[in-house]
Amino acid sequence: MRAVILAAGEGSRLRAFSNRPKPLIPLLGLSLIERNILALKECGINDFVIITGCYAHEIRDYLGKGEQLGVNVNYLHNSDWKLGNGVSASTFQQLYCENEKYILMMADHIFEPELLKSVIEAAKNIEQDELLLASDARLEKVYDLDECTKIIANGNRAERLGKKLKDFNAVDCGLFVDTGALQKALAISIGQGAYTLTDAVNLLAEEGKVKLHFVDHNWVDVDDPASYKYCKTLLLRSLIPAKDGFISRVINRKFSIRITKLLASTKITPNQITVVSFLIAMASAISFAFLSPLLGGLLAQLSSILDGVDGEIARLKFLKSKYGEIFDSILDRYADYFIVTGMAYAWYGTTENNILVLLISAAALTGLPLSMLFKEKYKTITGKPYLPEINDGRLRYLPGNRDGRLFIIMLGGVSNLIPATLILLAAITHLQTLYRLITVRKFL
Amino acid sequence: MRAVILAAGEGSRLRAFSNRPKPLIPLLGLSLIERNILALKECGINDFVIITGCYAHEIRDYLGKGEQLGVNVNYLHNSDWKLGNGVSASTFQQLYCENEKYILMMADHIFEPELLKSVIEAAKNIEQDELLLASDARLEKVYDLDECTKIIANGNRAERLGKKLKDFNAVDCGLFVDTGALQKALAISIGQGAYTLTDAVNLLAEEGKVKLHFVDHNWVDVDDPASYKYCKTLLLRSLIPAKDGFISRVINRKFSIRITKLLASTKITPNQITVVSFLIAMASAISFAFLSPLLGGLLAQLSSILDGVDGEIARLKFLKSKYGEIFDSILDRYADYFIVTGMAYAWYGTTENNILVLLISAAALTGLPLSMLFKEKYKTITGKPYLPEINDGRLRYLPGNRDGRLFIIMLGGVSNLIPATLILLAAITHLQTLYRLITVRKFL
Repeated sequence: MRAVILAAGEGSRLRAFSNRPKPLIPLLGLSLIERNILALKECGINDFVIITGCYAHEIRDYLGKGEQLGVNVNYLHNSDWKLGNGVSASTFQQLYCENEKYILMMADHIFEPELLKSVIEAAKNIEQDELLLASDARLEKVYDLDECTKIIANGNRAERLGKKLKDFNAVDCGLFVDTGALQKALAISIGQGAYTLTDAVNLLAEEGKVKLHFVDHNWVDVDDPASYKYCKTLLLRSLIPAKDGFISRVINRKFSIRITKLLASTKITPNQITVVSFLIAMASAISFAFLSPLLGGLLAQLSSILDGVDGEIARLKFLKSKYGEIFDSILDRYADYFIVTGMAYAWYGTTENNILVLLISAAALTGLPLSMLFKEKYKTITGKPYLPEINDGRLRYLPGNRDGRLFIIMLGGVSNLIPATLILLAAITHLQTLYRLITVRKFL
Repeated sequence: MRAVILAAGEGSRLRAFSNRPKPLIPLLGLSLIERNILALKECGINDFVIITGCYAHEIRDYLGKGEQLGVNVNYLHNSDWKLGNGVSASTFQQLYCENEKYILMMADHIFEPELLKSVIEAAKNIEQDELLLASDARLEKVYDLDECTKIIANGNRAERLGKKLKDFNAVDCGLFVDTGALQKALAISIGQGAYTLTDAVNLLAEEGKVKLHFVDHNWVDVDDPASYKYCKTLLLRSLIPAKDGFISRVINRKFSIRITKLLASTKITPNQITVVSFLIAMASAISFAFLSPLLGGLLAQLSSILDGVDGEIARLKFLKSKYGEIFDSILDRYADYFIVTGMAYAWYGTTENNILVLLISAAALTGLPLSMLFKEKYKTITGKPYLPEINDGRLRYLPGNRDGRLFIIMLGGVSNLIPATLILLAAITHLQTLYRLITVRKFL
């Protein structure tokens, strides 16, 4: 499936805010149009046609043929862009192939990736003379409702669209999948002197040919400084995974999201952040062993926070990689190992009962990788992820995952209770593993 | 797909050897017919029709409706079983459904599971008036060629079958997938007074309707004490996985296969063997810590050998389970942990430099789970197994997998070189992990 992106407008309300054409305004490390291209690429779309108008040269110079993004970009120019966005959309007629389904999207509307996936999935079920329109019926959640194109929906059909409609029950998200029906309608409406997309969509709506896909995820029409800021907040919030550990959700993400916001516009890569997080863990280990448990504990927590940032940057800037995932998970294990060994070393220096240090340190060290080991094995065997919140039953509140373990280490460092911390770590990790080993049978 | 199993004959040549009807003769813990049913069940076949003759009651009493095996078993009786196996096969006509494809197999032919899978796969591509016949063109590998039904094959079509053919180039494995064509041919040949399966198959061969599937795996017609013994050897040999570690292949399997042979006829389960292997590892740890490194080393190797037996018994008796896999892999980690902690404890008692014991033990303990961790993570991310022989490049000879690690521990115990063993374990496991971390990028 190809995607056609309308990037012809002037975007005057943001011009004062940023001195660039609107599709090229940077937002958390990517320009608006780049973000849309990369988000669609993640959904399997590799061919793009960009309709330029006002800032044709700037946009062409910036994106080129798409080499840098790893996609194919072609351009069509609409010199009559001032007439309306329907004229821009109809420019695609010259490249349209018979019976082709294509995505039509605005360069300046930003969507959560899951929303795009659901639209592409829904597009499989439309007829050859229909138009699919992404629409949002969660009116209380829509940003700047006044500015939206409203829809009067009857079931999953649009009856009428317009900016000033009363009695509407949904709004238009600015994202379509056309089967050619829209191109025909555009030819008619432009012939009648009606130049907006909405004019053509209304022609189809009268025939009952506009099928609505109601979205469950967020989107923003980035139109002015306020919506730009809102979009930033929304994207940052969407980086928090649904299945986050308790400490991660309640503490770490509060900081990591802020760090991600700061780092997004730099060139730092997720793997570089993984390395920094690891080096801070090493510093924590050294602090525990030779300097101060307080510093060791705080550095461990900082490392834990940064351990979230690599993933956030990867999701935010479409930089996820298989190597990054393996690299992160192995370095995390080493980080844990070093910190706990540093603690054991510190304890060793303060007691005569070294055999106890040896045995308890062994118990703590061996417990560290078991949670990951169990979960990975479960996944390779069953093909499904192991979900601690569900599968761990009564033990789901045990801080046995990495965010919990490093939080305990932080508390242990701050309160200077190293032996107790090691005993607690050993108890929690092994108890969790034994519990899983006994109870997992019923999930298999 | 249903499977029809011919179990009507007398099996006189084995009668003297075992006092049971041939299909019920036990072989490595399962009767011949049970093994065939369970092997087909693993290929997704759940409905069976068994054609009885000579020992109808014994076979019915033994298998019942198949509840114990988790399949549906129905019976048809052929009181004219003495006439020939074609008459037995034609008994199925009364249950045959139009256009049905079904498997026809002899109760006393034993096949490697992979052979059955390949035949079922090949059956997808036969026409509605054809018969698929599993045949073996690897004549040098065929057991007791004299007794086999020979085939003159022209490409993948049979031209003629017979016991006494000259110029044959393949043999009949006694395994068919029929589309109804064979039932029609049986009716004709029986009407002409020709009562064997071969007679009917030859009618189809004349019309070019017998398609041959050439097998790559082993099978035996269990007909007399010699072939019974050969079958045992074959099945035991097939238990060795293609991707076995070096120590496992060269040493451990030599013993584990013998133990499996002994245990096959008992009721011991794979999980029970896993527990025994774990307990022996605990005994090894205690020996290292308090008794003798020699005993500790030998027990570690014994545990390593038994670690192969659980899987062998599971494959041999169709007892594989997801729980067993998780249970085994977690208990293996604990076994390793205990043994190495036992060694560290022993070292601690013989030296003043306890901080060195602490640090080296920490390095050895933390290295133990990394190989599995890396491989599991690789598999969950890529969906493919990590293959040390290929992916580990120059380090593929490093004994970093479990069979290698326990072998080093055995050598260390026997030679009483515990510190050196712990240093070696730490070096090998961490070196392997770092090498993988650096080189894995090119496989992703």
